[in-house]
Amino acid sequence: MELEKQIREQAQLAKQAAGQLANLGTPVKNKILLAMADALLDARQLILEANQRDIQAGRKAGLSNALLDRLLLTDNRLEAMAIGLRQVAALPDPVGEVLSGQRLPNGLEIRKVRVPFGVVGMIYEARPNVTVDAAALCLKSGNAALLRGGSEALQSNIALMQVLRQAGETNGLPAGAIQLIETTDREAVKVMLRLNGLIDVAIPRGGAGLIRMVVETSTVPVIETGIGVCHTFVDAAADLGMAQNIAFNAKVSRPGVCNAMETLLVHKDVAEAFLPPMLSRLAAAEVEIRGCPVVCRLYPQAIEAADEDWSTEYSDLILSVRVVDSLEEALAHIAAYGTRHSEAIVTNDYRAAKRFQQEVDAAAVYVNASTRFTDGFEFGFGAEIGISTQKLHARGPMGLVELTSIKYLVDGSGQIR
Amino acid sequence: MELEKQIREQAQLAKQAAGQLANLGTPVKNKILLAMADALLDARQLILEANQRDIQAGRKAGLSNALLDRLLLTDNRLEAMAIGLRQVAALPDPVGEVLSGQRLPNGLEIRKVRVPFGVVGMIYEARPNVTVDAAALCLKSGNAALLRGGSEALQSNIALMQVLRQAGETNGLPAGAIQLIETTDREAVKVMLRLNGLIDVAIPRGGAGLIRMVVETSTVPVIETGIGVCHTFVDAAADLGMAQNIAFNAKVSRPGVCNAMETLLVHKDVAEAFLPPMLSRLAAAEVEIRGCPVVCRLYPQAIEAADEDWSTEYSDLILSVRVVDSLEEALAHIAAYGTRHSEAIVTNDYRAAKRFQQEVDAAAVYVNASTRFTDGFEFGFGAEIGISTQKLHARGPMGLVELTSIKYLVDGSGQIR
Repeated sequence: MELEKQIREQAQLAKQAAGQLANLGTPVKNKILLAMADALLDARQLILEANQRDIQAGRKAGLSNALLDRLLLTDNRLEAMAIGLRQVAALPDPVGEVLSGQRLPNGLEIRKVRVPFGVVGMIYEARPNVTVDAAALCLKSGNAALLRGGSEALQSNIALMQVLRQAGETNGLPAGAIQLIETTDREAVKVMLRLNGLIDVAIPRGGAGLIRMVVETSTVPVIETGIGVCHTFVDAAADLGMAQNIAFNAKVSRPGVCNAMETLLVHKDVAEAFLPPMLSRLAAAEVEIRGCPVVCRLYPQAIEAADEDWSTEYSDLILSVRVVDSLEEALAHIAAYGTRHSEAIVTNDYRAAKRFQQEVDAAAVYVNASTRFTDGFEFGFGAEIGISTQKLHARGPMGLVELTSIKYLVDGSGQIR
Repeated sequence: MELEKQIREQAQLAKQAAGQLANLGTPVKNKILLAMADALLDARQLILEANQRDIQAGRKAGLSNALLDRLLLTDNRLEAMAIGLRQVAALPDPVGEVLSGQRLPNGLEIRKVRVPFGVVGMIYEARPNVTVDAAALCLKSGNAALLRGGSEALQSNIALMQVLRQAGETNGLPAGAIQLIETTDREAVKVMLRLNGLIDVAIPRGGAGLIRMVVETSTVPVIETGIGVCHTFVDAAADLGMAQNIAFNAKVSRPGVCNAMETLLVHKDVAEAFLPPMLSRLAAAEVEIRGCPVVCRLYPQAIEAADEDWSTEYSDLILSVRVVDSLEEALAHIAAYGTRHSEAIVTNDYRAAKRFQQEVDAAAVYVNASTRFTDGFEFGFGAEIGISTQKLHARGPMGLVELTSIKYLVDGSGQIR
């Protein structure tokens, strides 16, 4: 009960701040963001020391090297955060945009205007950079942010938040506009996710387990993000050299991210010509190959794939590979195992390309390009708070605009109905 | 388990149909809608007989007259449904619209294209017209519809659905595109609301209890609709004649709908001049007045309002009335008790009008007009599936466009990252 009371109080404070943030001028918001960037660099010693406490506790607790790497802050990473804050300051302010408007026959004037959500609840894992990203994007879009990061990063997050708030509040940031839920108690997330009326939207960012927990627990509206079991389909009519470069890039350039390829599908007509050189090149880059029986025959070094391989987001140098009989079989495979994130076909067949784009149900559907482009910066949004894999509200990379709602303003002169 | 299996099978069928619906041509959809309109009128006897069975069972079960009236079908109401179907046929098809697009510096061509959600789950009460409305709007927007209406209307809904499906399927409607959950078991709704991956969005339409249940139960994304505790604030600078007409219209023209006024707020400076004639006029129209102490002093026929009156959607000829000291107090009252639906100020003070529109957090904020205009037809959307009172995805009246999502189509020539 103590925990619930405390989080509810924080959310009430956030809601009050949201009222002020909604009408905060763009220059004030930008000044705050720039001050935050400077403050992060000025306070680097404080922040790196706090981060070292998290790192040491994480080592003791036996965190994997991959997790420790995500948790680690360095001078370079702090600088990247400061650059990120400055970039958000430079982006256009979405709030107040008039999206459409008209005068009705009865003389009523209606405007559809962009407004902030109000209070955004972010639930994420042990990546301290998300604390800074989320604070910056919520602030610029006029939202109050209630942040709950992974407990392994708590000391880092407390230090970052202290620096951001101090820099913000001396430059006009309303108290309560950016808050951290400072507890390692896992119940805190459940409490947050049931604060309907105080929190307007919850955005989870992290692995499949976190996302599933949030979707199953939350009564607050959720934007699902980020699980990517992405496919590349090499069609019979593909340029095989292009296909090899695209598939290699989609798997190897950054295997830990959600837009990386997890499964390669290859049309049977080109499997023999395409697969041996492709898989040798991947193996030379230390990619483990798990194949269907046909793949294992064509490339004996492959391990036989188990059923669960087709639905696994490896986030690692592992690739499942399947030979299919037709475009239809590729489409059916993607419908069965895809997570509606990003899917690609490599082909020079016009009808195959069109059909793939039309029938695949995913946020981004590519012809002759790597799935790795599904990203807020690459799409030209300037920044992203995550990649939505649901169809409600936002789909694909979410920038500032996706952190807003609308309202209708109606001006009359006594109209009644 | 039997129930769960059956509903899951229906949802799977709906998902298959959704794949076909997404690419169904506009002329085919329109032909189906027009055929459905004709079929409803041709089958009026069958439908009215089925409806009479519901009505008789409802009378036996002691349903209120208001509920029986909502349940009742007549020749006129069937004709209104047929007109509704023809209107939806005449609306523009939202699917396939290119919302934006660009060529990136690396040559990738991106298009953001409107696509259907996929499968929409509608949960509603004993109003058979919602069955026809929802089927029509989902079909035109390319979605499969899984409909669960109130059990009191089951015989009517079965008859309507049989007529709609038969007319549809002989004109190209995919099997499974429109389905009714034909059970009175209340568990059915809970099963539906957890079919993530099969149902893309759930839309409840009904009273506060239904909406709350859906929000609390659903793991499928929900669009909340329709609870309206709407206010009209008569400012110190109001034209009192205009204010009287607006408030009278907002309360009396159709008290059972969600955009009707439930609470009248009056600035203390005009309370004495405004309230006695206003409340007499309302009383003459059989409106029961529940007032704050000041109101009861100015108008002794008023009943003293209890705390819960301020948060009650009466949907009836009852009005709560409060005198406030200032615009600030009115804003605070609306923030505390409003449901973010529709709010109005009557004033000739420019700053008060601007501030009210800026600070009130609601789907539609009116100056000098009745809240009764918050409606898909009135706003020019041609039809509505409900009025969203949440901020995610859609806010205010939801037409065909609000029943769609987007996807990004990306065309390349071998780009890698």
